[in-house]
Amino acid sequence: MTYDLIVIGAGPGGFDAAVEAAGLGLSVALIEKDFLGGTCLNRGCIPTKLWLGATSAVEELHNQARMKVASGEVTVNFAALQSRVQKHLAGTRKAMGMQLKKLGVELVEGTGRLAGDHQVAVASADGEKTLAYKKLVVATGSRPIFFPGLEPDGDCVLDSDMFLSLESMPESLIVVGAGFIGLEMAQVAHRFGCKVTVVDAMDRVAPLEDPEVSQALAGVFKRWKWDIRLNERVAGVVTRDGRALLTLNSGEHIVADKALVAVGRGPVTKGIGLEEAGVELLFNQIQVDEHLLAAPDIYAIGDANGHIQLAHAASHQAHYVALHAAGKIEAPYVVGPVPSVLYGSPEAMRVGLMENEAFLADFETTEVSVAQLAANPMAQAHAATQGFVKIIWSGGKVVGVTAVGHDVSRLVTPAAMIVHQGWTLDDIHSVIFPHPSLDEALLMALKAERKQVQ
Amino acid sequence: MTYDLIVIGAGPGGFDAAVEAAGLGLSVALIEKDFLGGTCLNRGCIPTKLWLGATSAVEELHNQARMKVASGEVTVNFAALQSRVQKHLAGTRKAMGMQLKKLGVELVEGTGRLAGDHQVAVASADGEKTLAYKKLVVATGSRPIFFPGLEPDGDCVLDSDMFLSLESMPESLIVVGAGFIGLEMAQVAHRFGCKVTVVDAMDRVAPLEDPEVSQALAGVFKRWKWDIRLNERVAGVVTRDGRALLTLNSGEHIVADKALVAVGRGPVTKGIGLEEAGVELLFNQIQVDEHLLAAPDIYAIGDANGHIQLAHAASHQAHYVALHAAGKIEAPYVVGPVPSVLYGSPEAMRVGLMENEAFLADFETTEVSVAQLAANPMAQAHAATQGFVKIIWSGGKVVGVTAVGHDVSRLVTPAAMIVHQGWTLDDIHSVIFPHPSLDEALLMALKAERKQVQ
Repeated sequence: MTYDLIVIGAGPGGFDAAVEAAGLGLSVALIEKDFLGGTCLNRGCIPTKLWLGATSAVEELHNQARMKVASGEVTVNFAALQSRVQKHLAGTRKAMGMQLKKLGVELVEGTGRLAGDHQVAVASADGEKTLAYKKLVVATGSRPIFFPGLEPDGDCVLDSDMFLSLESMPESLIVVGAGFIGLEMAQVAHRFGCKVTVVDAMDRVAPLEDPEVSQALAGVFKRWKWDIRLNERVAGVVTRDGRALLTLNSGEHIVADKALVAVGRGPVTKGIGLEEAGVELLFNQIQVDEHLLAAPDIYAIGDANGHIQLAHAASHQAHYVALHAAGKIEAPYVVGPVPSVLYGSPEAMRVGLMENEAFLADFETTEVSVAQLAANPMAQAHAATQGFVKIIWSGGKVVGVTAVGHDVSRLVTPAAMIVHQGWTLDDIHSVIFPHPSLDEALLMALKAERKQVQ
Repeated sequence: MTYDLIVIGAGPGGFDAAVEAAGLGLSVALIEKDFLGGTCLNRGCIPTKLWLGATSAVEELHNQARMKVASGEVTVNFAALQSRVQKHLAGTRKAMGMQLKKLGVELVEGTGRLAGDHQVAVASADGEKTLAYKKLVVATGSRPIFFPGLEPDGDCVLDSDMFLSLESMPESLIVVGAGFIGLEMAQVAHRFGCKVTVVDAMDRVAPLEDPEVSQALAGVFKRWKWDIRLNERVAGVVTRDGRALLTLNSGEHIVADKALVAVGRGPVTKGIGLEEAGVELLFNQIQVDEHLLAAPDIYAIGDANGHIQLAHAASHQAHYVALHAAGKIEAPYVVGPVPSVLYGSPEAMRVGLMENEAFLADFETTEVSVAQLAANPMAQAHAATQGFVKIIWSGGKVVGVTAVGHDVSRLVTPAAMIVHQGWTLDDIHSVIFPHPSLDEALLMALKAERKQVQ
């Protein structure tokens, strides 16, 4: 048979594309070489959130203890946590498998490779078989990347996959790369009492965020006695005598039980016949047109096309390609504002444009308005008052929201709606925010005095 | 001088009315007999949230301990917490006072009373003075009410004001009234190890909420070994031998260290010259027209008009009357969906219509769609998976959202926006929800199969 749609990769993008297409009545095959759920479920966002959730009492207690309101000790059993994580992942994968079955999606285990006109070859332990498609979705995702000298050895030098598979939490950890992945994992390690060193070649933590967000994060991490090494290039990191030995370009050595290398992720796009099928790659990213098509009848979504490395962005693209493949939509793909969140405590969130992006786009009308979390009773209640919410305005409309602080992830969905709808001052009173709530910090920022960006 | 606007009562409604009117250029006097911030700040929402925040580690630890992932002990020092609460309240009042000063609002301490044509008499320890106004806002708020036999004595029988002023948390507590106020305070007491008994004359806890919300809440409270007595009328509660002695209509006695009577709040509207000024009261509630006017040039907002006993509803009305008094708006007041939240863990939230309300309004097209929190990774991360999100649809539009479970308060602002905008199925994909997030439970509920309400 010829499938209406074949999807390669069952991460958030691929899985959702398969499910949505099947829901629209298409015959669908979904090819996965590893586990349902891809990186996000099995080696990324989900296990990290389970770690953060399980250790959140540590941080809540710590904050209240600083205020001398609470005392005590919370001990998280790492082995028990890891076993709970695995159980949750297995349960989720099982539920996903049942959903595919219910919708009549054919799950094909193996490695997919484009093999001639409208054909995909799937290689598995059982041999190779060929499937035919009318439309194809490439959702092959991404994997950790490394600079020379930073390759993980699986012993004391780990990538994020290996770190998430640890059987015990080290007592000291070097994190190379101060992006969201490294910082979330470092926060968990910190909660287990691990001594944390963070090294980044850039001049600030979370270097892709608003500089004031970086500053606020660093302020908290320094209070936690993290050793933060910025503007430092790493010459190499190796296992030596059972410990991780990191050498900076300056020649200085840093030693810890483990090193986590989290300098970024790159698309998985090589060796699967993409170029032979006429798909163009640039820095390994699949180039797509305004319909997310990489070649006739071949879509590429998610991390593989390199647009935005976020699960929900992949899912949003999946929704579009399912509709497009089913002939239900012809208009080009419109992404809209994509929210991003650093979880933990503090958290950071962002949606739409950052201050500098808006300024570059229109320096004449870009303004910002800010509310400090210290003025919010819920931030006070959690004794976590460092942080702020910043609204970025352009031409009198909200074009971006950035925030940092305890629990600010709860602002991201309303902020996404506000940015998507391009609120003006007149819209602020259209919706009633609950009192008291951290959400009111968003409202206060919207109402705060606007200052032109210079 | 004659003030453009005089406001009686500096709670959330009155304070905001004064601030907004002054911001619009009106000359404003604000009369308050007690503290800036009214019940919400000084004896209500804010201290309760500070209690809940300070004790949240207890509940987080408890949930993880049930999963055998964490162990330990968190002790909250009640005296230290109370002192922190008082410090926060004083700081907030001070900031509010400075804001009034900055805006040129005249703060007049004393009890305001309508005293003839466009005049208010203010009585204080210093005597009485009379102020003249062009427009008046009555924002006198509410106070706890009691049925006969349930009057607090300030010893072992307490109202919520007295409970919030305790110097130590009792070891056992009877809560009379299973509404939001009683349940939030009972949750705090529980976290301090207090044995909780809840008594209500209705057949369920949180009797104003969706019955399934009541059921979910009761399920958690019973797991906590609360003694929940429903369908029970209280004959009386008194202090006897240094303890609270409650007698049910059945004759049964219940004894505890303290009893908290939280059966409701009623408007503060008597004895301040309202009826003499031509204002109509019904069940003590000030009757207002579509412009929130109770009589020519006399507005009534907040708990005093009895519409909705919520601080943010009062603030929303305040915004309107400030604009109306300043001549900036002539259209009638439109309230829009008002969110309500029970804080704690579990939480409950609601905005717009409940299932039964929508069904009564239009039984032919009312549908509901539901997502269980157990399917959400953030609920799993916090080991708090009981609960659900329910969407109420009418005529194909979202008219209400109801949820119960850990952290569901974070859904209330996006839900308020969705209800306000009357989303249809087509709108669901217009905004990208972050993954993973509890917010996705809202998205899942929006996408879930809709079932007609019967």
